[in-house]
Parts: sequence; structure tokens; C-alpha cells
Amino acid sequence: MAEDAQNMANSRTWKLTLAYDGTEFRGWQVQPGERTVQGELQAALRRVTGEAPMPQGSGRTDAGVHALGQVASFALAAPIPASNLQRALNGTLPVSIRILEAKTVPPTFHARHSAVAKSYEYRIFPGELCPPFLARYVYASSWPVDFAAMQAAAKSFVGEHDFLSFVATDPDLTTRGAEDEAGEPGSIARTAVRTVYASAWEHGMCEAGGLLVYRVRGSGFLHHMVRNLVGTMMAVGRGQLAPGAMAEILAARNRSAAGPTAPARGLFLHSVEYRARDEDL
Amino acid sequence: MAEDAQNMANSRTWKLTLAYDGTEFRGWQVQPGERTVQGELQAALRRVTGEAPMPQGSGRTDAGVHALGQVASFALAAPIPASNLQRALNGTLPVSIRILEAKTVPPTFHARHSAVAKSYEYRIFPGELCPPFLARYVYASSWPVDFAAMQAAAKSFVGEHDFLSFVATDPDLTTRGAEDEAGEPGSIARTAVRTVYASAWEHGMCEAGGLLVYRVRGSGFLHHMVRNLVGTMMAVGRGQLAPGAMAEILAARNRSAAGPTAPARGLFLHSVEYRARDEDL
Repeated sequence: MAEDAQNMANSRTWKLTLAYDGTEFRGWQVQPGERTVQGELQAALRRVTGEAPMPQGSGRTDAGVHALGQVASFALAAPIPASNLQRALNGTLPVSIRILEAKTVPPTFHARHSAVAKSYEYRIFPGELCPPFLARYVYASSWPVDFAAMQAAAKSFVGEHDFLSFVATDPDLTTRGAEDEAGEPGSIARTAVRTVYASAWEHGMCEAGGLLVYRVRGSGFLHHMVRNLVGTMMAVGRGQLAPGAMAEILAARNRSAAGPTAPARGLFLHSVEYRARDEDL
Repeated sequence: MAEDAQNMANSRTWKLTLAYDGTEFRGWQVQPGERTVQGELQAALRRVTGEAPMPQGSGRTDAGVHALGQVASFALAAPIPASNLQRALNGTLPVSIRILEAKTVPPTFHARHSAVAKSYEYRIFPGELCPPFLARYVYASSWPVDFAAMQAAAKSFVGEHDFLSFVATDPDLTTRGAEDEAGEPGSIARTAVRTVYASAWEHGMCEAGGLLVYRVRGSGFLHHMVRNLVGTMMAVGRGQLAPGAMAEILAARNRSAAGPTAPARGLFLHSVEYRARDEDL
């Protein structure tokens, strides 16, 4: 008992930055009987430290969604140096999850509550011959698209808007909550108002040629929001919707006004931003 | 009967160029109860044409080995246009196999017997933090390596040599034959003499930084030969062997003289070359 109390008093809060291939997991969040990133990370922490805190993610990612820079936080009593923790976790985690950075942060730091901005990236392979080595990491679409029209649509999302038309209406929303909702797990999004700081398409490159890459940075994102934005902009790119229709779709505050949900495999959580004062010891 | 004879008389020989992610298959060659590239391709041909010729590969690739440009040949009676065959096969094959080109060739063309040269590529990610999106397609090694020493070793393999020291000695060699042996399946390699036209390391790039890429082009390759060359050159890069030892290892004609077998996941069959007169109608 005395030892436990001593350990708690000495426990440190950790921030991990991690990348993962979402193909191999039923999303971030622990679910009974499913292989999830959160579950794998907790099991790795137990193997390395003997402690099993539940790592809190900056937000949930759905099955098949990837991360280049997800952030997780938790407390550990073990006085392990940061570089050792990182190396030991990478030594025991599957190669589809990599810890990019491990650092100790103030006890008030929380990966979700402290986040001030997030960036996502969506990758499209345009053409019929998507290389097998990319197939898990892009949405392959052979429809010709009007890049300028998609770019114009993307600009419409910059600013503070009510994104209710782009929120998942799946029946398990109340139990799952919104993907990025800052409230407690299980709560429904209280408002769909979010601020998008940047929203643009770029031409990316891969070994097999050009990619279309959508980058979006905002205060927070609702469940399926990025995939619904992309699906709607793809409809614009294909001429099924006018770029100018985005304002009406936002105003409708109705999921059925927007386009389809783009597949999970093209989506990457790119990075999560925090204030220096919240994460620096 | 008359119709069958008519179909045979009208059958055309096809050359397919294909890429695949070897992670998902137990290698190229059909094996009972296993998922193989040859088996998937034959099943796709059956679904598309109603015929099920056994596609002959330019050589076998082992489980986990990838292809950027494998070649297969077979005959079909169905008078299907090339672009339709390619599109229909890509529509029914798993996304981990893509047909890059389909063309008709003279009836004497055979993907293995007609091949005059092959190129392989081996990709190494140097460092501790291999991105999850690359992990299936590179050998991740955090050992520091001496690039100049590996390059000197690579040069030793150019020319005509007996590569017996680099041939797999696994017990199933007699039933599997050599990976690239031009004889019939099941035969053992009659000679390990091969000509290497080019053998060099290059600095490659990926999203996550530098890669080490070994490129080798030769008249033919024996079972595990490229992976054994790479494993031996990695030992040179780590200072465990001198670059000058390559000549002695070749002269030894003994597998135990060379280094370990590098993992399958870094190996790509890059391309197969044919004489224009053998493949042009």
C-alpha cells in the first residue's frame, strides 16, 4: 500500500506520437475481441513496464484509417527513460504500429482535451492501375476529375461552419460518439460547429506517378467528417455537384445533402497540435 | 469436337506483365490449399474467359517476394481484345495483383524459356523507425552500414560466375527447383553458372527518408540467389566480412561460405527482358 502510494506520487504523464497502418486494426478504440491500436498499445505498455494504463488518444480513428502522427497520453509509475520506453515499445509492438516519439509532459496534459488543432490527409490514386503496394493506402479512382472544381469546393470549407451535413448518421453514433468529439466517450456531439483553418487539394507524387492529396487542418473533426468532405468533393470533381453547392450543403445541416463517404483506406491522421505551455515540462 | 479443334487452331498466346504484393501469397507457384499468384491468375482467367490455362511465369517468386514486372504466358481460344482482357482481369483480381499490360505474342513465346535477362531490386530501410506503410516492402535494419564497402562487394558479382555459394540449400530444392532455373519444374539446377550484367547499390528515396536499394540484372538467378547476395553484402556493410572476400566466397562453391539470406519482404522482381523477335507478332 505504501509502495503503491509512493508510485502514484511519483507517476509521470507521457505523450506518445505514433504512426500506424490502420488496415490491420478495427480502429483505434479498444473493443472486446477485436484487434485495435489502443489495445495493442496497452498490451505493449504492460509487457514493457508491468503497468497497464489505458492510453488516451487524441481522437478515435475508424477501422482502416491510418495515422502518421496520432498522439496518446497516459501515466506510468515506472521511472523509465524516454528513449528506453520508445525503443522497448517498438521492440514489442507489431511493425504496423511505430512509436515516433515518447516524452514526459505535465500531469495536466491529455491527448484529447489538450489538443488545439488536427490535420488530416486524404490520398487518391487517379487511374486504373493502382500499384498493389499502394492499394491499402489510397482510394483508387479511375474517374477523371476536374481538379480546379475540387479545389474551389475545398476552399468553401475554410472558416467556422456547422458541419452537421458532413457528420456520420450511422446508428451507433450515440455509443461511439463523434470521431473527434472533445466530450467524453459515449457522448453525442453537442454541436457540429468546427473551424477549418486550411482546406486544399495538392498534387502529390508516389513511385507510380501522381496522387491527389487533400489536406485539411482544423480545430476538430466530427465522425466521418473528412471522409464525407472528400466524398462530396469527389462528386464535384466528377461534375455531379457544382463547387458552389458547398454553401447550400453546409446550410442544409442534413447528412443527405452531402455526397458519399470516401473509403477509410485513403485517410491519414497527419498530426495533432498542442500549446507549448500544455506539453512542456 | 470439331468446335474444340477449331478453338485450338484459333488460340492465341498471351503475354501478361503483372505487379503484386507478395505479402498476401504463398509465392508465385500453385500449391494445393495455398493462396498463390499463379492460382489467383488462373482463377481470374477462368472467371473472365471460361478457359483455365495454367499461366507460366518467368520464374517462381517465393512467399513474401514482390513483383513490379513479373511476366506470364498462356494460350486462350477466346477472341478477346487485349484491353478488355486487361480490364476484366483487373476487375476480378484482388487489388494486391495488377495486370500492367496484356498483349498477344507469337505461339513460340514462353515467359520462362524466352526470357533473356531479369532484374531484381532489394530495398532496405536504414534506421530504427521504419514507417508502418513501408514495413511489408523493405528490410528494416538499424545497423549502421559502410555503403562504399557494400558497393565494392556488389561490383565483385558482375560477370560470369559460378554462384553455387549463393544457392539455397533448403531440403525442398529438388522438388522446387531453382527459383529461376530454365529447366522444367522439379528439376534441380544443373549448373550455378550465371552472368550478372549489373550489380550496384543506390540511394533511393521514400516519404520517410533514404532507402538503400540494390539493383541486379543478369541472365538468370538461382533460388534465393539475390537474397543471399544481399545478406552477404549486409555482412560486408556491417564490417563482418571484407569486400575482397566475395571472390573467395564465389570460389568456395559452398553455401556456408556466404552470409545469411535476407528477408523476402525487401525483394522485388523488377522486370524480365525478351528479344523483340520472340514477342512481336
